[in-house]
Amino acid sequence: MLKRKKISVIGAGFTGATTAFMLGLKELGDIVLLDIPQLENPTRGKALDMLEAMPVVGSDVHIVGTSSYEDTADSDLVIITAGVARKPGMSRDDLVNTNAGIVKSVTEQVVRFSPNTVLIILSNPVDAMTYVAYKTSGFPKERVIGQAGVLDTARFNAFVAEELSVSVDEVHGFVLGVHGDDMVPLVRYSNVGGVPLEKLLPAKRIEEIVQRTRTGGGEIVNLLGNGSAYYAPAASLTQMAEAILKDKRRLLPAIAYLQGEFGYEDLFLGVPTVLGGKGIERIVELELTEEEKAALDKSAQSVRNVIKVVSNR
Amino acid sequence: MLKRKKISVIGAGFTGATTAFMLGLKELGDIVLLDIPQLENPTRGKALDMLEAMPVVGSDVHIVGTSSYEDTADSDLVIITAGVARKPGMSRDDLVNTNAGIVKSVTEQVVRFSPNTVLIILSNPVDAMTYVAYKTSGFPKERVIGQAGVLDTARFNAFVAEELSVSVDEVHGFVLGVHGDDMVPLVRYSNVGGVPLEKLLPAKRIEEIVQRTRTGGGEIVNLLGNGSAYYAPAASLTQMAEAILKDKRRLLPAIAYLQGEFGYEDLFLGVPTVLGGKGIERIVELELTEEEKAALDKSAQSVRNVIKVVSNR
Amino acid sequence: MLKRKKISVIGAGFTGATTAFMLGLKELGDIVLLDIPQLENPTRGKALDMLEAMPVVGSDVHIVGTSSYEDTADSDLVIITAGVARKPGMSRDDLVNTNAGIVKSVTEQVVRFSPNTVLIILSNPVDAMTYVAYKTSGFPKERVIGQAGVLDTARFNAFVAEELSVSVDEVHGFVLGVHGDDMVPLVRYSNVGGVPLEKLLPAKRIEEIVQRTRTGGGEIVNLLGNGSAYYAPAASLTQMAEAILKDKRRLLPAIAYLQGEFGYEDLFLGVPTVLGGKGIERIVELELTEEEKAALDKSAQSVRNVIKVVSNR
Amino acid sequence: MLKRKKISVIGAGFTGATTAFMLGLKELGDIVLLDIPQLENPTRGKALDMLEAMPVVGSDVHIVGTSSYEDTADSDLVIITAGVARKPGMSRDDLVNTNAGIVKSVTEQVVRFSPNTVLIILSNPVDAMTYVAYKTSGFPKERVIGQAGVLDTARFNAFVAEELSVSVDEVHGFVLGVHGDDMVPLVRYSNVGGVPLEKLLPAKRIEEIVQRTRTGGGEIVNLLGNGSAYYAPAASLTQMAEAILKDKRRLLPAIAYLQGEFGYEDLFLGVPTVLGGKGIERIVELELTEEEKAALDKSAQSVRNVIKVVSNR
Repeated sequence: MLKRKKISVIGAGFTGATTAFMLGLKELGDIVLLDIPQLENPTRGKALDMLEAMPVVGSDVHIVGTSSYEDTADSDLVIITAGVARKPGMSRDDLVNTNAGIVKSVTEQVVRFSPNTVLIILSNPVDAMTYVAYKTSGFPKERVIGQAGVLDTARFNAFVAEELSVSVDEVHGFVLGVHGDDMVPLVRYSNVGGVPLEKLLPAKRIEEIVQRTRTGGGEIVNLLGNGSAYYAPAASLTQMAEAILKDKRRLLPAIAYLQGEFGYEDLFLGVPTVLGGKGIERIVELELTEEEKAALDKSAQSVRNVIKVVSNR
Repeated sequence: MLKRKKISVIGAGFTGATTAFMLGLKELGDIVLLDIPQLENPTRGKALDMLEAMPVVGSDVHIVGTSSYEDTADSDLVIITAGVARKPGMSRDDLVNTNAGIVKSVTEQVVRFSPNTVLIILSNPVDAMTYVAYKTSGFPKERVIGQAGVLDTARFNAFVAEELSVSVDEVHGFVLGVHGDDMVPLVRYSNVGGVPLEKLLPAKRIEEIVQRTRTGGGEIVNLLGNGSAYYAPAASLTQMAEAILKDKRRLLPAIAYLQGEFGYEDLFLGVPTVLGGKGIERIVELELTEEEKAALDKSAQSVRNVIKVVSNR
Repeated sequence: MLKRKKISVIGAGFTGATTAFMLGLKELGDIVLLDIPQLENPTRGKALDMLEAMPVVGSDVHIVGTSSYEDTADSDLVIITAGVARKPGMSRDDLVNTNAGIVKSVTEQVVRFSPNTVLIILSNPVDAMTYVAYKTSGFPKERVIGQAGVLDTARFNAFVAEELSVSVDEVHGFVLGVHGDDMVPLVRYSNVGGVPLEKLLPAKRIEEIVQRTRTGGGEIVNLLGNGSAYYAPAASLTQMAEAILKDKRRLLPAIAYLQGEFGYEDLFLGVPTVLGGKGIERIVELELTEEEKAALDKSAQSVRNVIKVVSNR
Repeated sequence: MLKRKKISVIGAGFTGATTAFMLGLKELGDIVLLDIPQLENPTRGKALDMLEAMPVVGSDVHIVGTSSYEDTADSDLVIITAGVARKPGMSRDDLVNTNAGIVKSVTEQVVRFSPNTVLIILSNPVDAMTYVAYKTSGFPKERVIGQAGVLDTARFNAFVAEELSVSVDEVHGFVLGVHGDDMVPLVRYSNVGGVPLEKLLPAKRIEEIVQRTRTGGGEIVNLLGNGSAYYAPAASLTQMAEAILKDKRRLLPAIAYLQGEFGYEDLFLGVPTVLGGKGIERIVELELTEEEKAALDKSAQSVRNVIKVVSNR
């Protein structure tokens, strides 16, 4: 008997809800949207609103909102977007500690009901939170994955496509390391339809685009005034989910657990991976220039610093 | 030279923004998302966030946020979602007057820059606001269309599909008249894959589903606690937009200007229409039972009452 | 671990090959295209050509051509299109006997390697061949399904859409019984967006469309001069496959094993079914008028006559 | 008023028909399939069969078969697949002359009825036939385009994806020059998700894949025994058509008229182009190594030799 896939999205904020909606539009499986009991009604409302959109798009998926982890039982994939945003006066360490507590608690409950699921983590700071989910779940490393590089790449690609006035389909940026300021763009691997970006744009312009990508999240925060990006993050999570659920074995950047790859041990870092039915099917190692390796070291160090905060809790 | 279509969405609230995003996902054309100058930055932020999602989905469309109507120039289609929600203490007439002012002003500016566009109206109360847009624009009647029935039908279909545990693809509800309490469901025209609904469900259960559909908007409002539905409304607007932009000539319920059809004159009312490249290509008249006609009369009267408020401004 | 679905198509003629290609375009699963050993090379050639098209459409499926049933092992779905076409001088009984032998042999081998698969039969005459596959496989009745009504309906819908100049999306024809001359169109269940067809077209015009549908296969045969239809048949098989593989529970006409439904016992006949992950999830019984019942009886009798030929082999 | 695009496909053989079908599946526009008067009935039969598949896939396009060029009037895009295949005992020059005559005649009639259309040529040998269509049409160079590189790249990508067991979505091969033996693969520009192919596969294996790509057409011909590839060629034509019809500005290899680019004058050669609403929007020049330039020179010379045959007719 052929059964639909089941996907749970933990956290029904803008990103979680938009992700659930996009999963539904793509008919990737039945969807459970979960948030805390205090938000159960709004979560149910969002899920119902999405469900009512499905006849219009011809998508046969159930979408339910809940606050009970039992409803997530036997998920094939669980996407964790839960966590608080940094508030004024909150130190970075406070944020880390708060979210680590949330991710730990969420992971415990998810794993209890779906011991064979794959986990994708978006909670912030994502490298450290993926580490927390990994340690808490006791899952093999291939089933705990953090999102970062797909979003950074998407932004980079959007800027390049606009600059060159070409289709987004052939623009292929390439980033390693952590999300944000310590992102490591590998410009020499970036290309448009195979043509190296460096042949198409002057170095100065590329550097401006790299810099805009680095601060891409902040650019949206500043414009919105209240809140942060959710459309492109949701699209990124959906792409990773599709690669796994359909066993596509796509080569996508993701935050993976390293055991010697790129020279790092016991660390989650954004690297090129192959995402398929098992989760991370492979980590693709690259030769790096000295400069690139130094930048990646810096990125790795910044992840270690955050993990230290988590570990000292 | 082949050019992309251009679509403007007026009002960057949840429904407007979600509509713009869905239009982008479907690669239906370049998109302008417009809101008032005070909201220009958030509007630009939302549009930029959407644009950054396009590389992930492989969709080649531009999406810009703006507060300037000049940017909407030469749109092929304009979707008007602008308007305020009813606030506590606000009378129904106050709401009508406020939104009529907004829709009038929006329409004037839209029409100035896109004299050949098709208009789809969602602003509330939608029957009256479509009338306002019609009168203000001076457009021929086929190019001014209100959304109501697609959403009502979507909700009805979702409930029936759930009840019968069948695909949404074969459930076909059918509603006339105004959105909400005075909606006129034509149960005898509703079917599942051609099988009349009345053969598949007991009359009592159908009546419950009809009633739930009538109050479907309110059900979401109550659950959300703060705000109203936007996923299914956005999907509905996107479906109408696609039918027009791709000249599909779909038979969809829409709020159309009646000149004798169904026995009404000079009135916008939800009726079965054929939506294609010209806008409303045809109104499909049906024989109604006395009971159905009485219900539709009541629906028509409620529209007239609102229009009277608008006309007395 | 999440795995791709596996689909085998038996018979690599035009319909089988086009079906395999459409399954690939829709990324419904890995595909095995099988034909007899004498045609192994052309079968491999077609499969390779299809595989080489997949990068262009972004579809991650394997497609292999083979003559070995081992390669079909553990299929989730097997579509049997094998069989000969009627040649000049060949009696109808000869055709039935030849194809019954082919379908029996194919089914034996398919079932040996995929004991849990769902079978969809297209081989001609399809009602009887579905019966042969059922008896040979020893499968429960829900996992042996014949294709007929989806194609008849598609043709009917195409003609109506053209006649009324409306989208194909809202045209819903409805047929019962066997494919071809004894097809039983239920005109009163046919509608366009819920509006009964009888309100939209004069009875005479509907009757002409019904008649054209009945002889729709012959119309194509006559035009082609050499060969028969394969695009619409392949699209029909693909739709049934998708409903099953994605557990959509679509209400589609299909040839199902009847045990009392519609008053028939131990007979395969085209009836409204719900197709989902289990195969035929439900048969939807309808009240028929006396005239409709008489026509269906005639259809049933024509199936019985063919089965008698098969049983006497 | 919004109108559907119109696409004509000249030549209703396997490739032409499959292309028409794929254009229909993608709902890219109304389609005219044309072949010679002697084949009018089969052409009409194929078109009708396709049309009858459209309700199943929900695609609102007209598809007609014809032998009259009047029916192609006002096409937005015309795809020319007409021509004979090389028969035993036919010299290469005979083939060139025969097909040049066909393409000239087809182009004259197409241009007469659609003076503003874009032309895509597939007829064989394609570089020379594109030249013939260019000279005959009198069109500006951006509106006459030959297909070659998309297909070569698709084959290369399919082989690499299979070899590395990764998604086709991230494999990006890169070829220049003519189709077939003189194809110039730019291996250093080929990559998988940005990672240079040379880092992922040993040089020897890459060379084997290059060689298999070069002879990819022949591999299919040998397997089929009778006929040549049509699925991947049709997918390639469809991708180019979509890029143009939706003004996607995709960076795709195509046969373009060179006036100094890459050092060639008055020559059609396979080069990286940007395909959008105007046809070829841009030719992307690359620095080549001496070796690559030498290979491209050889490719160019082989085109010149064929064109000489054409010019001497």
